[in-house]
Amino acid sequence: MKLDEIGEDRLIGQLVQGLASRADVVAGPGDDCAVVAAPGDRLILLKTDCVVEHVHFRPNEKPAAVGWKAMMRTLSDFAAMSGLPQYALVTLISPADREANWMTQLYRGLRRAADRFDVAIVGGETSATKGPLVISVSALGSVEKTRWVGRSGGKAGDVLFVTGKLGGSGKGRHLKFVPRIDESRWLTKNFRIHAMMDLSDGLGADLPRLAEASGVGFAIEEEALPRNKDCSISEAINDGEDYELLFALSPNDSAALAKKWPKKFPRLPLTAIGFLTNHSSPVTRHSFHGFVHFQ
Amino acid sequence: MKLDEIGEDRLIGQLVQGLASRADVVAGPGDDCAVVAAPGDRLILLKTDCVVEHVHFRPNEKPAAVGWKAMMRTLSDFAAMSGLPQYALVTLISPADREANWMTQLYRGLRRAADRFDVAIVGGETSATKGPLVISVSALGSVEKTRWVGRSGGKAGDVLFVTGKLGGSGKGRHLKFVPRIDESRWLTKNFRIHAMMDLSDGLGADLPRLAEASGVGFAIEEEALPRNKDCSISEAINDGEDYELLFALSPNDSAALAKKWPKKFPRLPLTAIGFLTNHSSPVTRHSFHGFVHFQ
Repeated sequence: MKLDEIGEDRLIGQLVQGLASRADVVAGPGDDCAVVAAPGDRLILLKTDCVVEHVHFRPNEKPAAVGWKAMMRTLSDFAAMSGLPQYALVTLISPADREANWMTQLYRGLRRAADRFDVAIVGGETSATKGPLVISVSALGSVEKTRWVGRSGGKAGDVLFVTGKLGGSGKGRHLKFVPRIDESRWLTKNFRIHAMMDLSDGLGADLPRLAEASGVGFAIEEEALPRNKDCSISEAINDGEDYELLFALSPNDSAALAKKWPKKFPRLPLTAIGFLTNHSSPVTRHSFHGFVHFQ
Repeated sequence: MKLDEIGEDRLIGQLVQGLASRADVVAGPGDDCAVVAAPGDRLILLKTDCVVEHVHFRPNEKPAAVGWKAMMRTLSDFAAMSGLPQYALVTLISPADREANWMTQLYRGLRRAADRFDVAIVGGETSATKGPLVISVSALGSVEKTRWVGRSGGKAGDVLFVTGKLGGSGKGRHLKFVPRIDESRWLTKNFRIHAMMDLSDGLGADLPRLAEASGVGFAIEEEALPRNKDCSISEAINDGEDYELLFALSPNDSAALAKKWPKKFPRLPLTAIGFLTNHSSPVTRHSFHGFVHFQ
């Protein structure tokens, strides 16, 4: 079977099956970051991601914007776990005839993105290729043991929230987004967040992953979805690359959150979009009137 | 200027110039691993590397061997610093029409290599590409503060040693090598190693880097170079991908080392190949009779 027939989730599932694990690995493949134990009151977080020419950016895109995106995609997974990224490694795999100035600009974007969150680019690697340019960014960070949030802690009855607006990222937003690290840190400082992730593949692909990891179902009020300008509900669900936070917390806490959020983040909307249900594995997707049916 | 005109060392030098650094970064770009401070008696090591189809392996190579190489290239840089790798992240960037079974075999090689050194593959990423396959492996590990060895501690008069034999790795050895982690750990447990690195680009490219980082020159007795079967001196110097250790220690210690080594590692030769000289920056390369002139 070819890769494009098998699908990414299933492929990764097969590849990581039975991976020999060390006793100090708290969370391996399958969540936003890998989590490993460390001495003291913090956990270590690790994440790698990549952007590929023609797949994640067009050849005529500004190189500084491509660098920004390459760094921020990786850092967004730290937001998903309420972690603080600290160090990054950058691998550039490039055709030999690429202009060195293009690389300089790319690196400018990588640095600017890293600086935004006090991340040090501590090393990397370069290689030639005959094919499209690839930028791979790995990062190391940490999170307090008491504040780590994964995908699997969601409970039936939890309210689901998303930050910002969804859809239409292909019009340029996918190159300019700022990971919700500040927001995520504030959330776990002030509330008990049960489950959280960043929306990279779109709500329609990502929410089922959160629900499945938590062993619950979900229901979404489609009219409530916060949409970017000129975006349909379907685009808000399926476009992807929003890099907004999706998280679940108890209904008891949600009123306080809805009150405090706009004072702390007046320019970033926070929207309750639905709730987790007690339909467990296989994930049940409500599709009655007013609730969206996920493909 | 194009990348192939500027060269990797110079390009990296330009890209990392003036990188904003955190106070806890002990060694950033330019050494085998990045080194960052940690609480307690250990330093954290980070490294990323990649293998690219047509560049680091041929399309008809066995996928398990390609996976082995991809993992071991990264782990070899831990040997260079006498570190212990602990966790790895794997990014696969693959054409969509690649057989899933090829990937399964690739992953088998990655795992086997990781298991060899008790490294846990804790996560990764996959992406499509229109071009050649890329496997990027990042790893995190640590080393005791008292045993960390970089490239910059070499002193004039130090004896230079290499493990194993050099040259001819393209005949298959580049897919099967075992990083010298056990040897490197033993060395720093029993001796004061001043400077060390792993030979990935070949002695002819790598030794000048060690000398330059240490601010010294070097002299090599070319006839003394340990060579693989049917390899010329030039091949031993220039082929690359040996993944053997090159290290420097004081002449006082070298006699004891030469005596103890064969008892501990009877099947792996250790050879004194020359010494560091007091000719500092720019690196002076001796080229008198019996000593090789590096290109």
